[in-house]
Amino acid sequence: MDIVFLFYEGMTALDAIGPHEILCRLPGAKVFRAAAASGKVRTDSGLELIAEYSLADVSHADVLVVPGAGSGASLSEYPNVLAWLRKLHECATWTTSVCTGSLILGAAGILSGLQATSHWAALDRLPRWGAKPVNERIVEDGKVITAAGVSAGIDMALTLAAKIAGQRFAESMQLGIEYDPKPPFDVGSPEKANPAILEALRIRMTASFEAEPT
Amino acid sequence: MDIVFLFYEGMTALDAIGPHEILCRLPGAKVFRAAAASGKVRTDSGLELIAEYSLADVSHADVLVVPGAGSGASLSEYPNVLAWLRKLHECATWTTSVCTGSLILGAAGILSGLQATSHWAALDRLPRWGAKPVNERIVEDGKVITAAGVSAGIDMALTLAAKIAGQRFAESMQLGIEYDPKPPFDVGSPEKANPAILEALRIRMTASFEAEPT
Repeated sequence: MDIVFLFYEGMTALDAIGPHEILCRLPGAKVFRAAAASGKVRTDSGLELIAEYSLADVSHADVLVVPGAGSGASLSEYPNVLAWLRKLHECATWTTSVCTGSLILGAAGILSGLQATSHWAALDRLPRWGAKPVNERIVEDGKVITAAGVSAGIDMALTLAAKIAGQRFAESMQLGIEYDPKPPFDVGSPEKANPAILEALRIRMTASFEAEPT
Repeated sequence: MDIVFLFYEGMTALDAIGPHEILCRLPGAKVFRAAAASGKVRTDSGLELIAEYSLADVSHADVLVVPGAGSGASLSEYPNVLAWLRKLHECATWTTSVCTGSLILGAAGILSGLQATSHWAALDRLPRWGAKPVNERIVEDGKVITAAGVSAGIDMALTLAAKIAGQRFAESMQLGIEYDPKPPFDVGSPEKANPAILEALRIRMTASFEAEPT
């Protein structure tokens, strides 16, 4: 089973690494971390990851995972990426995104007519790609699964692991990463957040989206 | 503020990347990702991260973060690492670990007489280092904060961010990563897990610990 992660400059590391920690352990998984060029990829937190493969090296995915990005994503490489995503999506059993990765799926034309989610601050950008925004943590429409912001990728990957390898496997994975979350505050979604904090963050994130072509 | 992450071969990527996504955004943060030798570090999921610094390059930490490892951690580099950890711990404001990172703190002598936690399957290994195991997700004792398995690092980092930069900052971070977790199953701790799954995983993880000198 080919599990393919798109890596790109400016991506958010946790968007990819949360699902990666789970999906790489699927039975028979062969993982491909692919970027426009193989080698170092600088994430939006400064951390550098290695993509062992270039896009040209990878022409098939059973599971495709597209992480999102905060500010600073370099989209100059996107035309190639979008064509590559379309090709892999055609043969994929599951095409997935985390956070604003759904905007990239959208730009690739993959979300046309589909229900999808994204980071809460980016949800209203989905319709420009023909997608119907749904304010849920995980949205499944056909073979496309989109997750909300950053940490939602962990929930998405466990859900997907259960679909692929069964609930028992997913439960073992969840116990393995001791995923019994106890956030220190109950403010992790717009509905629960302090309104002043929410608006300040929305303004900041919207500004960073406006700076990007997507 | 110097935030130092120990990277090492065989570490669990998510142990580090969860906290990294939060702590790197602390006001004034300067982040150091340090390993025995600078360059590529292969994690236990196959993903390679870059440590920009060698241990010799880093002699001060305000916040020190030590991730854990599944099977396959190479401990041959540990004698150097332990001395380095002791040195950084002396000047650190906060010394932290995620998952079995607490066993490394223990081996460095940092947990002697302290309460601490670890991955649930490794809790009973803490007393050999003089630590008192506490079955909680986050344990604070003096300036040492230990977190339970893998995903607990996210909760720990948000808790620490609130101590360092205030609750408002931590709430904004939590909202930014949309950390309003909805695990697909309620099985993320030993107390909640299916007993058969728990025992199978305990046996597998214990065997991997036995293969290591710590």
